[in-house]
Amino acid sequence: MSKHVVIVGGGIGGITTAYHLRRLKPDLKITLVSDRPNFVFTPALPHLAMGWRKLEDITVALAPLLPRFNIEFKNEKAEALDPDNNKVKLASGEELSYDYLVIATGPKLVFGAKGQEENSSSICTPDHALKTQEKLQKLFEKPGPVVTGAIPGVSCFGPAYEFTLMLHYELKKRRIRYKVPMTFITSEPYIGHLGLGGVGPSRRYLEDLFAERNVNWIADVEVVAVEPDRVIYKDAQGKEHEIEAVFTMFMPRFQGPEVVASAGDKVANPANKMLIVNRCFQNPSYPNIYGVGVVTAIPPVEKTRVPTGAPKTGMMIEQMAMAVAHNIVNDIAGSQERYAPRLSAICIADYGEDAGFFFADPVLPPREKVITKHGKWAHWFKTLFEKYFLWKVKSGNILPFFEEKALEWIFRVQPIELCSDCSGSPGSRCP
Amino acid sequence: MSKHVVIVGGGIGGITTAYHLRRLKPDLKITLVSDRPNFVFTPALPHLAMGWRKLEDITVALAPLLPRFNIEFKNEKAEALDPDNNKVKLASGEELSYDYLVIATGPKLVFGAKGQEENSSSICTPDHALKTQEKLQKLFEKPGPVVTGAIPGVSCFGPAYEFTLMLHYELKKRRIRYKVPMTFITSEPYIGHLGLGGVGPSRRYLEDLFAERNVNWIADVEVVAVEPDRVIYKDAQGKEHEIEAVFTMFMPRFQGPEVVASAGDKVANPANKMLIVNRCFQNPSYPNIYGVGVVTAIPPVEKTRVPTGAPKTGMMIEQMAMAVAHNIVNDIAGSQERYAPRLSAICIADYGEDAGFFFADPVLPPREKVITKHGKWAHWFKTLFEKYFLWKVKSGNILPFFEEKALEWIFRVQPIELCSDCSGSPGSRCP
Amino acid sequence: MSKHVVIVGGGIGGITTAYHLRRLKPDLKITLVSDRPNFVFTPALPHLAMGWRKLEDITVALAPLLPRFNIEFKNEKAEALDPDNNKVKLASGEELSYDYLVIATGPKLVFGAKGQEENSSSICTPDHALKTQEKLQKLFEKPGPVVTGAIPGVSCFGPAYEFTLMLHYELKKRRIRYKVPMTFITSEPYIGHLGLGGVGPSRRYLEDLFAERNVNWIADVEVVAVEPDRVIYKDAQGKEHEIEAVFTMFMPRFQGPEVVASAGDKVANPANKMLIVNRCFQNPSYPNIYGVGVVTAIPPVEKTRVPTGAPKTGMMIEQMAMAVAHNIVNDIAGSQERYAPRLSAICIADYGEDAGFFFADPVLPPREKVITKHGKWAHWFKTLFEKYFLWKVKSGNILPFFEEKALEWIFRVQPIELCSDCSGSPGSRCP
Repeated sequence: MSKHVVIVGGGIGGITTAYHLRRLKPDLKITLVSDRPNFVFTPALPHLAMGWRKLEDITVALAPLLPRFNIEFKNEKAEALDPDNNKVKLASGEELSYDYLVIATGPKLVFGAKGQEENSSSICTPDHALKTQEKLQKLFEKPGPVVTGAIPGVSCFGPAYEFTLMLHYELKKRRIRYKVPMTFITSEPYIGHLGLGGVGPSRRYLEDLFAERNVNWIADVEVVAVEPDRVIYKDAQGKEHEIEAVFTMFMPRFQGPEVVASAGDKVANPANKMLIVNRCFQNPSYPNIYGVGVVTAIPPVEKTRVPTGAPKTGMMIEQMAMAVAHNIVNDIAGSQERYAPRLSAICIADYGEDAGFFFADPVLPPREKVITKHGKWAHWFKTLFEKYFLWKVKSGNILPFFEEKALEWIFRVQPIELCSDCSGSPGSRCP
Repeated sequence: MSKHVVIVGGGIGGITTAYHLRRLKPDLKITLVSDRPNFVFTPALPHLAMGWRKLEDITVALAPLLPRFNIEFKNEKAEALDPDNNKVKLASGEELSYDYLVIATGPKLVFGAKGQEENSSSICTPDHALKTQEKLQKLFEKPGPVVTGAIPGVSCFGPAYEFTLMLHYELKKRRIRYKVPMTFITSEPYIGHLGLGGVGPSRRYLEDLFAERNVNWIADVEVVAVEPDRVIYKDAQGKEHEIEAVFTMFMPRFQGPEVVASAGDKVANPANKMLIVNRCFQNPSYPNIYGVGVVTAIPPVEKTRVPTGAPKTGMMIEQMAMAVAHNIVNDIAGSQERYAPRLSAICIADYGEDAGFFFADPVLPPREKVITKHGKWAHWFKTLFEKYFLWKVKSGNILPFFEEKALEWIFRVQPIELCSDCSGSPGSRCP
Repeated sequence: MSKHVVIVGGGIGGITTAYHLRRLKPDLKITLVSDRPNFVFTPALPHLAMGWRKLEDITVALAPLLPRFNIEFKNEKAEALDPDNNKVKLASGEELSYDYLVIATGPKLVFGAKGQEENSSSICTPDHALKTQEKLQKLFEKPGPVVTGAIPGVSCFGPAYEFTLMLHYELKKRRIRYKVPMTFITSEPYIGHLGLGGVGPSRRYLEDLFAERNVNWIADVEVVAVEPDRVIYKDAQGKEHEIEAVFTMFMPRFQGPEVVASAGDKVANPANKMLIVNRCFQNPSYPNIYGVGVVTAIPPVEKTRVPTGAPKTGMMIEQMAMAVAHNIVNDIAGSQERYAPRLSAICIADYGEDAGFFFADPVLPPREKVITKHGKWAHWFKTLFEKYFLWKVKSGNILPFFEEKALEWIFRVQPIELCSDCSGSPGSRCP
């Protein structure tokens, strides 16, 4: 009988894993469970918030799509795991048995600052982005001070920078930028740390961008509360300050979702409920459970005074998915070969008129290579990539031949590598 | 009977206001009062100090000039104001009645550090610049350590940077630069703050310029005394330091002149005797009194540990003059339309061989746009602008058609904007 | 009878002095004493350590070479000086009488951190470089954390930066860079200080290079101990930290050698046993003793919290040699003309694939001119210069006509200048 792989999550991680599995093993039984009916291209959520995209532009309905590739789609919330009995319990009460389980749910959002959820905006889900769009309309009508940034514990800083610089551009286009003092407040020890100890010249690069575009910044502080008209933050000396703001946007902290937490401490990291995985993105206690994407517990790159975490970018997630698909298929085939994702990344931070292009191999230091560029071309490159990725999702062709070769030839990137010893934290180097 | 406008001050602010008024209302009675017989192109005073200009190159005699445009010129000191009776008292004892008064005197210089006036140099008046020229000759003959910079409370930092980098260039040309240790000591919290919280990349730009040209710098300190052979300054911990110097040049602090102070606290800001004006550069208590230029009380952009003020550059002053002229003419015509200057600026910091080009719109943050460039072309551009401005003064043509259009087309600058509510501090945004 | 000049030391300083003397005075009796049989092109020692050169590539045997230019070569250690009797005592017991003595021994290396000599590597002598080469092979086989830098009191920082960036390049070529966390730990108050208070934009330049190439740095600290698997350093608050390292390379401190120390406090600086010289590189107490190169006691450029010293680069040493040769020949001729070296320098920091080009005139601040460039061309320029310099040594032609003219035309450099008053510390300006 064919083995059954259950994938929980229908974002970049879940879809990419499903398609890789399908490609590698056409007869595999695959079920994808997601409480959302659609795939959403998450990197475009800041664009959605800014009003530069419609939701349908960046969305693909999964129900009509997945069956075309012989992937069963259950549009339901996965509520609990029973790893000892290889079962996932769905919201409907149904218990789904699996031979292999891939968790790719993405994070649970934690709005850790007092009043953040009520008074601030966010861009981490389509709903949040659309609400932010509405609030921005009010700002455009009645301009005033704006504060953006990241609260303590955030691991995903990139979109905060993107959003801030996009907003600068939008305000400039509307010729009201000079009525909007902008301040970026972050838990990073310095601007451009990004939860990664910096990436090449990222500190200088972002300090320069912010200075040129008249965005003030305050780093190494804790945002403790967001009120309707102000933000309160605490500095390194423990002193509280407040700053006026008629509009705010703060990245929330990420935690593992309930479905992971439900499986106990061998599956969920007790500290943050993220999924415990090894270098090959396999759970050490339950070898038939794998993780892909933001839900996996990658340890912080370095200790920072205010806590920060390591980000997981789209291309890193694609590499996790590819490694996990290979590892499952090899396990079924009885092969001992296991793969670890390289976790290199091309990452484009889009600012609306121009963009920053980053290539980091790997993303987590020490790095073999870092390339950074800036220009209008990078904005158009990202825009094209969005269309391309949505085409990949619709066509089921997750890593076309030409993409693989281009990465290999231009950047000498191998997305995954054979790993002789998987026991080590995710992102650490195979011996 | 035609209304009478009295303008006190014959610098960029006074002359520009006079010419705008004449252009807007050919039959208006205009009297310009100044204790100096000449218009001097203030931005070239550092060049005069360096010996790169003769005084006559940057000077236009007012007595033969102004009557050609039907502007009466009184070469006398204005000693006191009587705003309740609409009178200006001149040094001769004459009392000049006005319907509208424009104060454009420029500042009173305050040499706030002990021994500064006797032992240091300055470049704020033609006299000071010529004395500085003499002192520099001695430095060139007997090279030694030089210290330049700004004392606490300064609002005009640009010329200090210009002078310092000009002096570097002059010493290099004379091939004695390597015998002259140069140090820049400033009340700014960091190099390139400029009393403006920085302008785009100004911090990095000036740190780089100083590093490349081997000028040491000490920021966020108070110069407390200048002795003939040394400078004493106090750091953030209150500790005094001294540094050897055979030549020094420190920008003085600016205060309102006696003529403003004489009018009482409704006209003069009690703290610094600067003229109190609103967004439209009109005195709130005496609506027929207007201010143009450095004499107006623009509040500091941000609180700095050592006090600093916001600068008023030539182009900002031209915009104040234009707004004030429109506001007076509209008031005479019974129109309710009032204008506020945009306070944007093109500013070229000239270093002798090359120059920095800054465009800031507006100058006071938050800013719509900042452009910064550096090159030899900018030095030549500034040199040409000096000739061009002197031609404008001599021809009475203060904003020629082609200049207005060029600014509009290239930089999208409108020098003044309609302001529905003038009640707000100068430089703050109209609703 | 012809005068006798004894030169102690066969490196860049000794050889260059010998050749200048021979050129200026063909009948002069010259003896060169060195305990090493070969001239070694010291700037290529990092390349030797990296395995990019063979020892014979950068070495010239002195015994067959010097007699061709009528210079006697004694391959012996100079053990002691008797300045009152104009004698040098050699290891063989021979006492060499001189009319003029030139000390160009180079430094004695002081491995001041506990365990540094046993557990760390160095690149200051051919032996050390070869041992480092061996240790690097082990690193390449079993990659792990690397720490490089400089201990307190170092005056020669350039090669530490070169070595670090060369190692980055070598690891990248071997595609193992991502397994090697690299950290640079230095006694400099900041990266790029170089014992010189920075050279033009050197701080920003090296911070950028390190950031781009993912080398972490810790400045303003004291390395106190090197153990086989870690480095212990003390920060400004006196707190000790440790950092893991499987390979380390630290620049040692330089001291005057025993032969200088033996001559007493009028010859050797009591603090560091370096040779006391004046602006013209002549000993003030014994006017027939001169110094050339690293052995001379140039005072630090500025006081730093952790002590650092001023470096002496190859071109500075060539200028010292030229000045000293002129001064000896003039003294013999009864001329009062004395020369001081300008101490300007072209310095290329080679990183293997590219290099930094620095021109500083003079090297010690204040400086007339600084030029900095970066590129692959600079790497090739340095490689060519190495061949060119070795050709100069072999041909006895130490400053060919075309080199002198090129320096004069391109950089307007005069290597030495007439000095009306030699009494002043070396590197200070003649009046």
